[in-house]
Amino acid sequence: MSHIQFRCVECEAATPADAYTLRCRQCRSPLDVDYTHGVGPTLTGELPGLWASQARFPLHDSANVVSLGEGHTPTVRLDRLGARLGLGALYAKLESQSPTASFKDRGATVLVSMLKEAGVREVVEDSSGNAGAAIAAYAARAGIAAHIFAPATAPQAKVQQIRIYGARTHLVDGPRDAATAAAISYVAEHSSCYASHNLSPYFLEGTKTFAYEVADPLIGGLPDHVVIPVGNGSLLIGMWKGFLELRAGGRISQTPRLHGIQAEGIQPIVAAYLGEEWSAQPGVTTVAGGIAVAEPPRREQAARAMRNTGGMALTVADDDVLRWQRLLAAEEGVYAEPTSAAAFAGLEQLVLRGHILPGESVLVPVTGSGLKDTALV
Amino acid sequence: MSHIQFRCVECEAATPADAYTLRCRQCRSPLDVDYTHGVGPTLTGELPGLWASQARFPLHDSANVVSLGEGHTPTVRLDRLGARLGLGALYAKLESQSPTASFKDRGATVLVSMLKEAGVREVVEDSSGNAGAAIAAYAARAGIAAHIFAPATAPQAKVQQIRIYGARTHLVDGPRDAATAAAISYVAEHSSCYASHNLSPYFLEGTKTFAYEVADPLIGGLPDHVVIPVGNGSLLIGMWKGFLELRAGGRISQTPRLHGIQAEGIQPIVAAYLGEEWSAQPGVTTVAGGIAVAEPPRREQAARAMRNTGGMALTVADDDVLRWQRLLAAEEGVYAEPTSAAAFAGLEQLVLRGHILPGESVLVPVTGSGLKDTALV
Repeated sequence: MSHIQFRCVECEAATPADAYTLRCRQCRSPLDVDYTHGVGPTLTGELPGLWASQARFPLHDSANVVSLGEGHTPTVRLDRLGARLGLGALYAKLESQSPTASFKDRGATVLVSMLKEAGVREVVEDSSGNAGAAIAAYAARAGIAAHIFAPATAPQAKVQQIRIYGARTHLVDGPRDAATAAAISYVAEHSSCYASHNLSPYFLEGTKTFAYEVADPLIGGLPDHVVIPVGNGSLLIGMWKGFLELRAGGRISQTPRLHGIQAEGIQPIVAAYLGEEWSAQPGVTTVAGGIAVAEPPRREQAARAMRNTGGMALTVADDDVLRWQRLLAAEEGVYAEPTSAAAFAGLEQLVLRGHILPGESVLVPVTGSGLKDTALV
Repeated sequence: MSHIQFRCVECEAATPADAYTLRCRQCRSPLDVDYTHGVGPTLTGELPGLWASQARFPLHDSANVVSLGEGHTPTVRLDRLGARLGLGALYAKLESQSPTASFKDRGATVLVSMLKEAGVREVVEDSSGNAGAAIAAYAARAGIAAHIFAPATAPQAKVQQIRIYGARTHLVDGPRDAATAAAISYVAEHSSCYASHNLSPYFLEGTKTFAYEVADPLIGGLPDHVVIPVGNGSLLIGMWKGFLELRAGGRISQTPRLHGIQAEGIQPIVAAYLGEEWSAQPGVTTVAGGIAVAEPPRREQAARAMRNTGGMALTVADDDVLRWQRLLAAEEGVYAEPTSAAAFAGLEQLVLRGHILPGESVLVPVTGSGLKDTALV
C-alpha cells in the first residue's frame, strides 16, 4: 500500500495517486499529494540534493531518486537595496544556482523520480523554457525520453539548453498557452505521460522544500515577508504547502506573508486574488517570460496561498522589471532573469503602498539566472 | 602585524603582502600567500559562502568579506559515463552552480575581499570571460569600480554578464593574451589596481577551498584522481595548495593525482610539464575558450602540481570536447561549457592510455555552465 493519495484542491475528493492522473475525477480541479492515507516507506540511506530535507516525499524507494544536487541554494543579504527600501533586512535566495539555473529543478527532481518509479519511459511537458529545461535534464539523467513544447518566442538560451539534454523540442507559434494545447494534443495522440509542472501534484512536493530551507534555523529565523514572481504559482503554492507542514509539525509558529507578483500584461492570478474577471489581450505580453501564463490551472489555489498568509497580489510594469534587473546586478552582484527581477519591482510597490513596513524583513527568491534570458541585457 | 606575507614560487624570497604586488621583486616569478609569517587574526562570526571553510584565509577582518554564497557546490555521481569508461566511480563537482556560474567565484570572493580591506576603489582584470564576470560581480557587491578586458571573440553571454554588473568592458582584438597586454597598459596609465586572477596570490586562496570540500568526509573519501581543464591553472594550483595544507595538518594522508587537460591548439602547460618548448601558432585556437591562454604566468607551478601528485598533462581535440559536452548533457543531465567538457575528453584519454585504471575513482570539476558559451550548442 502506498503512503500517499491525491486530494482535490477544491472539492477535497480523494483519488489514488499515479503518474497519469492530473485532475480530480469529480470536478476536474488540480490535485495535491495527501500523506494522511497511511504509513509509508521511509526513504533510506544518504540522500542527495533536496532529498536530504526533513520534508516528507511521495517516493517509495530511494533507488528511484533522480538528483542533480538541487536545493540548498545560498541565501545572501542585499544590504544596499534593503537600505534603499527602508527594510530591516532584505535577503535573496539564489535559486538561480540550481542545476539547470532555475527553481524548477526542485519540482523536476521529485516529479521525474516519481515517473521513474512508475516505470514511465517517455514524458511530455510544456514550458516557457525553465521547466522544460529542468524536466529535460532530469529525464536525461533518468533515461526517460522527453518531448518539450515551448513558445517559438522562448529565449534562445533556454531552447538550446533543452535541446542539448537530448529532449525533442517542439516550438509552438502563438502565446505561451498554445504550447500547452500542443502538448496536450501530443499526449492524447501518443498515449504519452503528461509531466505538467503546472498540474502535477508531485512537482509541488519538490518546490515545498524551499520553505523547509527558509525555516532552517541556521539562516537566522523566518522573514516577515516572501515576495514571489508567479506564473503558474508552483513556487508560491509549494512554499505555502511547506510552511503549513512545518506549522502542523510544530516546527514554526507563524507563516511569512506570501506575496505574488505578476506583470501588467498578464495577470490572471492577481485577478483571481481580487475576485475579478481577467482575460488575455491578443499580442499583449511581458519581458518577464517565465510568468507570462494566461490560464494557470492552479490560480485559485495560488490566490488562497496569498490570502491565507496575509499576502498581497499585484502587478508591475516591464520598465520597472528591467530597472530592478540592472540594480540587482550592478549594486549587489546578483544576475537575475527578468522574471525574477519582477519580484523586486513588486517588493518596491509593496513598500510604497505600505503593505511592507519599514524595519521588516523580506526574502525574495531569485527564481532563475540572468544567463537564461539575455535578449534585453 | 599581518599574519601573511608573499613568497616567490620559484626563488622562495619573501615579500610583504599587499594589494598591488603580483611578482617577486628579485626574479619576477609569481607569488603565493605564506602563513608562516606570524599569528594572525581569526575571522570571527558566522561566515558566509566558502568563508565557512576550515581553510586559513589571508583576510584580517570578517567585516570585509564580500560573498555571494559561493562554494559548497554539489558533487553528483555520473554512473552511466563512469560505467562506459570502466571506472569504479565517476563524480562531477558542479562549479557551474556558482554565483556567476563558474569556479572563478572562489578566487574572486577572496581577491575582492582583500582589495576591499586594502581600500582599493578601482580594479582592472583581463579574462576570457568567466574570471571577468566573477570579478565584476564581486566588485559590484563591494562597491569597487571594475574595468574588464576581454577578447573581442569572448562569448556574448559572458560579455553581457560582465556589463550588467556595471563593469566597464573593453573588448580587445587578437588572441586572449592581447587582452592581458591591454589591461596591463591601462593599469600603468591610470595607476589602477591589477586584479589579475592569473597572478594574484589571493585568488589561489579561494580556489584552494575546492580541495577542502573534496576532502570533506561527508562526500565519501578522496577520489584517486582529479581531472582539471587548465588555462592559467588557477583551479589546479589552488587545489594542490589546499591538499598540501590538508596533508600538513594531518587531515588527509594522501593527495589525489591531479591531471591537467589542455586543447591541442593551445598547450603551454602541457609543454611545461613535458619540459618542451611551445609557442602559439597565429590563428590557431580552440572551442574551449576558457583554457585558450598562450602564456600562463604560473605554467611551471602548474606543471609541478601535476608532477608532484603523480598526475599527467595532455591535450584533447576540439571534436572530442564537443562530443563530451553532448554526452554529459544527454546522458547525465549536466550542461557544461566546452572548456569543462575538455576535462572529460581528457579523462577518456587517460583511461585509454592506462594512466587511470579500471575500478579507480575520479572526480572532475564542471568548471563553468553551458549557459555561458552557447555558440556551438
